[in-house]
Amino acid sequence: MMRLLLFVALFVLGSRALEFELEELSKYIDSHQEEYVQTLREWVAVESDSSDVLKRSDLERMMDMTAEKLKAMGGTVELVDIGVQELGGGKTIPLPKVVTAQFGSDSSKYTVCVYGHVDVQPAKMEDGWATEPYNLTDINGNLYGRGASDNKAPVLAWIHTVEAYQALGIELPVNVKFVIEGMEETGSNGLDAMIVSKNDTFFADVDYIVISDCGWLSRRPALTYGTRGNCYFFAEVEGPKQDLHSGVYGGTVIEPMTDLIGILDTLISPSGKILIPGIRDAVAPLSDEEWRLYQDVEFDVENYKAKIGVSRLMYSSKVDLLAHRWRYPTVSIHGIEGAFSAPGSKTVIPAKVIAKFSIRQVPNMDPATVEKQVTDYLHTVFGRRKSPNKLKVTMIIGAKPWLADTQHPLYKAGREAVKKVFKVDPDMIREGGTIPIAKTFQDVTRKSIIMLPIGGFDDGLHSQNEKMSRYNYIEGTKLFVSYLHEVGQIKRD
Amino acid sequence: MMRLLLFVALFVLGSRALEFELEELSKYIDSHQEEYVQTLREWVAVESDSSDVLKRSDLERMMDMTAEKLKAMGGTVELVDIGVQELGGGKTIPLPKVVTAQFGSDSSKYTVCVYGHVDVQPAKMEDGWATEPYNLTDINGNLYGRGASDNKAPVLAWIHTVEAYQALGIELPVNVKFVIEGMEETGSNGLDAMIVSKNDTFFADVDYIVISDCGWLSRRPALTYGTRGNCYFFAEVEGPKQDLHSGVYGGTVIEPMTDLIGILDTLISPSGKILIPGIRDAVAPLSDEEWRLYQDVEFDVENYKAKIGVSRLMYSSKVDLLAHRWRYPTVSIHGIEGAFSAPGSKTVIPAKVIAKFSIRQVPNMDPATVEKQVTDYLHTVFGRRKSPNKLKVTMIIGAKPWLADTQHPLYKAGREAVKKVFKVDPDMIREGGTIPIAKTFQDVTRKSIIMLPIGGFDDGLHSQNEKMSRYNYIEGTKLFVSYLHEVGQIKRD
Repeated sequence: MMRLLLFVALFVLGSRALEFELEELSKYIDSHQEEYVQTLREWVAVESDSSDVLKRSDLERMMDMTAEKLKAMGGTVELVDIGVQELGGGKTIPLPKVVTAQFGSDSSKYTVCVYGHVDVQPAKMEDGWATEPYNLTDINGNLYGRGASDNKAPVLAWIHTVEAYQALGIELPVNVKFVIEGMEETGSNGLDAMIVSKNDTFFADVDYIVISDCGWLSRRPALTYGTRGNCYFFAEVEGPKQDLHSGVYGGTVIEPMTDLIGILDTLISPSGKILIPGIRDAVAPLSDEEWRLYQDVEFDVENYKAKIGVSRLMYSSKVDLLAHRWRYPTVSIHGIEGAFSAPGSKTVIPAKVIAKFSIRQVPNMDPATVEKQVTDYLHTVFGRRKSPNKLKVTMIIGAKPWLADTQHPLYKAGREAVKKVFKVDPDMIREGGTIPIAKTFQDVTRKSIIMLPIGGFDDGLHSQNEKMSRYNYIEGTKLFVSYLHEVGQIKRD
Repeated sequence: MMRLLLFVALFVLGSRALEFELEELSKYIDSHQEEYVQTLREWVAVESDSSDVLKRSDLERMMDMTAEKLKAMGGTVELVDIGVQELGGGKTIPLPKVVTAQFGSDSSKYTVCVYGHVDVQPAKMEDGWATEPYNLTDINGNLYGRGASDNKAPVLAWIHTVEAYQALGIELPVNVKFVIEGMEETGSNGLDAMIVSKNDTFFADVDYIVISDCGWLSRRPALTYGTRGNCYFFAEVEGPKQDLHSGVYGGTVIEPMTDLIGILDTLISPSGKILIPGIRDAVAPLSDEEWRLYQDVEFDVENYKAKIGVSRLMYSSKVDLLAHRWRYPTVSIHGIEGAFSAPGSKTVIPAKVIAKFSIRQVPNMDPATVEKQVTDYLHTVFGRRKSPNKLKVTMIIGAKPWLADTQHPLYKAGREAVKKVFKVDPDMIREGGTIPIAKTFQDVTRKSIIMLPIGGFDDGLHSQNEKMSRYNYIEGTKLFVSYLHEVGQIKRD
């Protein structure tokens, strides 16, 4: 009896101590808000645009600043060489180094590895920004700047999380590792190979991987448990040996552009049905559980329409829209290379035209199968035209979808953390886009992964006027603190 | 009897004198070949690309050079202001002035007006030129350079024709006028109005108009008696208010690009049949006489295929091919503005896409009717898709076809001139392309028009590696000399 009482007393005291610690951490974070905003300002000021090789020195400076920050906090930091980038014509430049860091190596604790990136999409005032994209500007609590939400503030929030524990002398509930790269916006060039090569060393003792490179769906916090993959195709139709004058040759030549338009028109129906045989067969059926989950998600259809600026969407109900955004494949035709695309008029019969289209991948589609289905189908359709032109279909990207088990302890920890900080249950959401690194982490390291977003639904990633709100930045930091705390409590098998 | 003998003697002497003059002119032309090539080199070196407003100063220089050349020869030269070009957004720039010139005003002679242009299509090495497009390069007697054949060498050949008469002190058999413009390649902006305004002055005493802005069909010289017109359309589909990420939004949005591809695919069948209701009804039936004429034309189908670089054409017989090139309408889809057209991949849902396509016009089609047929049809087809996107169809060019009477004295003179210089009968041909100015000259001035080409069948107008052969350039100049001579002999009614 005494032992039980003692146990209960210790448990209650322990819980109270933890609650107290979280409260202290929360206060610390609130009182350092201006400092956090200032650091974000310094980071946003670096034009770490990975798509522009002329800005490579800025990007390298960004990687160095990240490493210095983590070193100053006493982490074990490495700048990992990941090789060179091919520029064409035999030219190369070094890829920005990947920053890895480690805080704590207590084998009795879990080890959580945080992935993030500090490179950004291009941005120029002329694109239609209301403020200088590389000058963080606070307007009514929104911090506008390129990379603010994608992904500099979330990376800083994770760094500040560790810093807060350190500053208050509170032991980290888990060991924390960081993998911060600088090529995410252009396809994470070199990162896959680095993960493979460090699988038995840096990643060996990692238990869980956390990615905060995404956003909420509404004002309600969310946990992300899936992303779509992407199969990206080039369909090239080649005819005459050079472009021809449409007046002089039109009517006698079987035009590649007409052939290409003809086959593109067989990919998807006006009502959004994919017409390629077999594609839809592979799609996992929508379960009742999923249907219920989607019903619970906070998603304002009218708001979504207004944001996009359309009067009608492909589907009218919330569940249909969410399902077709997250868990059904779709075909998008992006454009045609080789045809006349400038303003004005030109009377040309283009000799070689290359359509670019992609099919979003969902469980249980397999890119290799999709490649064959699309290629076979287009060749069949093209064959029916009896054209003398030549068709070549190539799949240039084959990224698989990623899906996590929402009942995994990582997600339970996420739900608890969200409830503690925001006093609501999180939305369980998926991303329509592709984060191929999630799939690589899963396939290579075989660790469990969670996506824990803190970005707002209206942050404008990749668009003009990208922003991060002070609220999401600061409460997001508290969420990370709380999350590490929850992960520390996960029971060992 | 004496009088008759005297008449015959004078006639014979006169003919001999004329023959002698033509021989002298021919020798003069041969001996000045290098000088003519050098002048062409200087003209080709001017990047008088009328489609690029940034090259407007080059184009203006080209017009000045043309005027200077004609002034130096003692012509009455004017640089005619034809107003301004609208650039959108309320901006304008001056149009290049039109050069008019006059040599001789003897009212007992016919007055022949030569039309030509000295602006060119765009050209860049990267387009696949084997030599610098603006550096005239002689390879085995072919002079490669942008604008060499279209239309700088023919304009120079006409100028050299007048010059040769002057140099040898031989009286011109006709008065010669020039109208040389600088906007032909972009639709002769401003020229129609100028012709209308000068109809009672400059054009009042003109008897015949000669256009040499075209080419032969084979190695056999040709006279051109018809051109197709052109209705050029923009079909714009507009959806979301800005481009969207295809991962994030794909599946929920009704994509403008899919709609556009869908309607473009309904314009023409794989076998070349125009699917727009009514279009084919207006086409004049092929007469037996035309059929026979086509059979006589020198046209090597295998050669044509080899030149274009295709294994099969839309039709296999010569007559079908000529008929579909010259006297049947056709649809060409030139390209799409607003979609992704660069090399590489981009996961974009374009918000607004504008297809460019054109329908070649033949007798008895009427552009205004075609505009209505196309617009109504596309809206009907688009309506069936039940898309929330907005379709806008605009006809930006509506150029009528032109057809001449091959029995007119102008054509008889042409046949004689060709026989004299080339020792063969010319092919009577039509152009698949459009020379709208022919129709304007006909409708406004009511003068008779002939197209007298000297360009080779393989000159590559509007393409990479455009050229003019020395043979066509020099023998073409002799043809013009001979032609003026023949026109001078045309009996007055």
